[in-house]
Amino acid sequence: MSTETKTPDKLTQVTELAKRRGFYWQSYGIYGGTSGFFTYGPLGAKLKQNIENKLRQTFAQKLGLQEIESPIIAPASVFEASGHLKHFKEPMIECQKCNKKFRADHLLREQTHITDAEAEKLTLEQLQQQIQQNNIQCPECGAKQFSEPKHFFTMFTTTIGPYSDNIGYGRPEAAQGIFVEFNRLYTINREKLPFGTLQIGHALRNEISPRQGLLRQREFTIADLEFFYDPEQPDCHILKEIENETLQLLLAETRQKCSEKLTETTVKEALEKRYIKTEWTAVFMILAKHLLIQLGIPAKNQRFIEKLPWERAHYSTETFDQEVILDRWGWTEASGHANRTDYDLESHELKTGIDMHVFREYEKPIEKEQLVIKPNMAKLGPAFKKDAGKVEDMLADADPKQVEDSLKEKGYFMLDQYKILPEHVSITREKTIETGRRFIPHVVEPSFGTDRLFHITLEYAYSTKDDRVVLKFPRGIAPIQIGIYPLMSKDGLDQKALEIHKTLIDEGFTIEFDEAGSIGRRYARADEIGIPLGITIDYDTLKDDTVTIRDRDSWKQVRTGIDDLPRLLNEYFLGKIDFEDLGNPVES
Amino acid sequence: MSTETKTPDKLTQVTELAKRRGFYWQSYGIYGGTSGFFTYGPLGAKLKQNIENKLRQTFAQKLGLQEIESPIIAPASVFEASGHLKHFKEPMIECQKCNKKFRADHLLREQTHITDAEAEKLTLEQLQQQIQQNNIQCPECGAKQFSEPKHFFTMFTTTIGPYSDNIGYGRPEAAQGIFVEFNRLYTINREKLPFGTLQIGHALRNEISPRQGLLRQREFTIADLEFFYDPEQPDCHILKEIENETLQLLLAETRQKCSEKLTETTVKEALEKRYIKTEWTAVFMILAKHLLIQLGIPAKNQRFIEKLPWERAHYSTETFDQEVILDRWGWTEASGHANRTDYDLESHELKTGIDMHVFREYEKPIEKEQLVIKPNMAKLGPAFKKDAGKVEDMLADADPKQVEDSLKEKGYFMLDQYKILPEHVSITREKTIETGRRFIPHVVEPSFGTDRLFHITLEYAYSTKDDRVVLKFPRGIAPIQIGIYPLMSKDGLDQKALEIHKTLIDEGFTIEFDEAGSIGRRYARADEIGIPLGITIDYDTLKDDTVTIRDRDSWKQVRTGIDDLPRLLNEYFLGKIDFEDLGNPVES
Repeated sequence: MSTETKTPDKLTQVTELAKRRGFYWQSYGIYGGTSGFFTYGPLGAKLKQNIENKLRQTFAQKLGLQEIESPIIAPASVFEASGHLKHFKEPMIECQKCNKKFRADHLLREQTHITDAEAEKLTLEQLQQQIQQNNIQCPECGAKQFSEPKHFFTMFTTTIGPYSDNIGYGRPEAAQGIFVEFNRLYTINREKLPFGTLQIGHALRNEISPRQGLLRQREFTIADLEFFYDPEQPDCHILKEIENETLQLLLAETRQKCSEKLTETTVKEALEKRYIKTEWTAVFMILAKHLLIQLGIPAKNQRFIEKLPWERAHYSTETFDQEVILDRWGWTEASGHANRTDYDLESHELKTGIDMHVFREYEKPIEKEQLVIKPNMAKLGPAFKKDAGKVEDMLADADPKQVEDSLKEKGYFMLDQYKILPEHVSITREKTIETGRRFIPHVVEPSFGTDRLFHITLEYAYSTKDDRVVLKFPRGIAPIQIGIYPLMSKDGLDQKALEIHKTLIDEGFTIEFDEAGSIGRRYARADEIGIPLGITIDYDTLKDDTVTIRDRDSWKQVRTGIDDLPRLLNEYFLGKIDFEDLGNPVES
Repeated sequence: MSTETKTPDKLTQVTELAKRRGFYWQSYGIYGGTSGFFTYGPLGAKLKQNIENKLRQTFAQKLGLQEIESPIIAPASVFEASGHLKHFKEPMIECQKCNKKFRADHLLREQTHITDAEAEKLTLEQLQQQIQQNNIQCPECGAKQFSEPKHFFTMFTTTIGPYSDNIGYGRPEAAQGIFVEFNRLYTINREKLPFGTLQIGHALRNEISPRQGLLRQREFTIADLEFFYDPEQPDCHILKEIENETLQLLLAETRQKCSEKLTETTVKEALEKRYIKTEWTAVFMILAKHLLIQLGIPAKNQRFIEKLPWERAHYSTETFDQEVILDRWGWTEASGHANRTDYDLESHELKTGIDMHVFREYEKPIEKEQLVIKPNMAKLGPAFKKDAGKVEDMLADADPKQVEDSLKEKGYFMLDQYKILPEHVSITREKTIETGRRFIPHVVEPSFGTDRLFHITLEYAYSTKDDRVVLKFPRGIAPIQIGIYPLMSKDGLDQKALEIHKTLIDEGFTIEFDEAGSIGRRYARADEIGIPLGITIDYDTLKDDTVTIRDRDSWKQVRTGIDDLPRLLNEYFLGKIDFEDLGNPVES
């Protein structure tokens, strides 16, 4: 859109508004700013909390899942086991002229037609070739001379306590804080599967040169949900509720044909056709779609792209990224849905020696018959003499079924060069009872960057009406719910307005009280930060205890009695009634 | 208490319960555990969120303050300016035998009668003396040979981005994230004072040897409220509302007489007698008292201790710590109330050169008359010849009032060796209009460690009844609000219970559904995690749509219609009605 109208693109507009009205800005501005770090101002912090709470409701509350909070810093061994120490690195090049450092693959993506997916696949040597062939420029100084690409380790490193060899890292994901506590969480869940654990918290990735605002930060907020299930019982109890809902998929198969054609499918069909392999993954993808709709992103602007093997994180066997169309960047990741299998739990078991298996009792014990070949030493000894011991050991390793079949069919069994006759062994059938099985649970993981959700929400809310900005936040997440405006700051109007303010604050609403400037200007200021409703106190209010309520989006107005406000507003913000139900229409 | 009965003290009991039921535990247990790091399990994370929300309500919502969210990592310059780089260090000694390192002052406090306050005052040399004189032992191996004490820097250090000289630190407080953004926050607040900004988030202190559970962590959650005001208008608009409420103070004056006698005083009196110097500090102390009462800590178990000069942080001119009695540790810090004056803003201004002053317009401009002495060069030149220029400069620096007085009284004014006569100068009175003044706002800061609040809440909730544990959380913060229990898992009771469960989940309640074991056992499990209400579905429910509600604390029961549940339960958890109002009493 930006190319046609020559107005700044949405990112520029949103960033400017965000800074001016205090949604967010780059941190430490008085110290020149620090790349990849952002501060959420009052409106932003509230909006972010509302988004995170919607995520909690949509996933945890819906499915009865639990949340934990673990530290951001972890000892080195955790990330040795998880594979992060080995895999968490990015290709870096340095401009020979200005000595600034950049991610080699990002420069390629920005300055050529090479896609992210293609760039991620390249080795260091291939990256260097491409950078030379494509005449890549330094984004800072324009020079075209770069160092050889090398790998830069992108975790934040520190030491824990006073011993300098006690290395710790800032976590790049919240997931490991859940995996390392699996045994305890399993006990707390009364040793039942499936169960899921959510964690929302800060995480750290020491990006080489972050230049995408909230979308690529060095410190960000992650919401990881680790859902543990028995791979032999992968069925989801709420599948029926959502199996007819649809998803737009961009399948790996399609992508490998260099096409971006979307496959529109119901959940049921996606599972039947094995587009999606796990029921729980499909269900979490639908819930992620619901979440984004609640944040104001229409379904048609959402898709799920299946990652190619080299694009997937080291722990995943199947990954879909939920993507959303953004004005500047096109399709952009909003969440990831990985199947981590038993990778993480097994890695921690291997590293610590602590058992991560669970035992699942069968409903009924299973009786199994086992064929047992026992050497008959009274006959074996004389037959094989000094080799008898060796034959005995070899028999123990032999497959009893093969021995039995051969003896039956041929009358003997060749154990290497030793000819075993029926009289050398006794064959019995022993019954054993298995009461259950031991296994490491598998994990599917929906993972959100809540800063990304924040940016997406803000960009989709951004609209203009009569050349003015209106942030059309869905009412369920607006950082401020209600504006209160005395028509004048005199004649008792301000006093009356303060009374209503207090009543609604006590009801738990988030409110802005504004008595500065004309009513029109106050409405405009409110629209710009997305306050859904404005309540105006005028001279009629003093006579009949009614107020005007104004709708942010339609600019329509209704008139309502003060006493009814708490009930009506509660129902409105819970989505039970619409604006028109708040009172009698006012001609404007 | 623990000494008399020989039962384990409350800390031991609470820690055991916390681990078993999933409130919290030391992190990374499968890797041997990491000192100073804790993970909150499902119940703990929820309780912690509830406590933090109470804090938001009590401070931010009550006073209309705003919240922000800034990063945990900050560039070095921020903490150079704030003084942390210089001051954030602790005395460390190393056991010569086992090479374990400890905080020297903590060992003294633990093994002698030297108090925290006294130990903090000691220099490194004095600490060494005391350690030798008191025959201090290594808590790990018992040896009595220590290295010389030296200072250990207790911030977590890392590097930001790919440049190794770009040092960053983990923030030890959330306050600096607010101070560095002051100008922007002031603009967002439409350039009005006073205003306050709250931040709740993780913080890091690289403790030498943390051994006090949740009370001294390396990673913890801090809630810092920075309240900016004009030091010439330090009055608080809500003082009247609370001025007759009382505080228990342990004043510095009392402490210096080696007494612990509490001064019980109203806020009004405390301000009049200058026990507390700032109105806002007094108001925040009252709100902190309210908060702890809401968390279940009676007023009598709370006091505010005035810190002695050497106990105060480097930025504070007046500090009161809110303390609470704990079973093992006695009076223990729950919050700090410091007057940070203009220390931080001025430090950042000095470091960055960025103006942190605000301009406050007077209500009416102030007209000021200024006396101006102007040299009369036509006379000065001939009189002083080549010195005339020098005399002109010296006159400009002279005090006009002195010149005028001297000329009037003596007929001349001696400017060093130069004799100024009335004809050499002209004296005028010029009027200037001052429209306002420029100043750096002052700051008072209430600061909470929410992990400490968590521990305090848990310890005060811990009680026993009939040899069983009952966590008596105030209903407003219980991590789970309602238990739902079908009497049997058959005959449609479970189905009915699930329906009620769904209705109440949709109403937003936090619920545990439990159908395992006898009703008595389920009640006991619920009491142990502090669920205030239990709803039991029995055979009568199927007939008349009524259920039994059981009270956790009194174990009384009432009978209520299912349709009334949402409304009644909402009112109960908002504190509008009591348990008895929930239905008709049931004989038990």
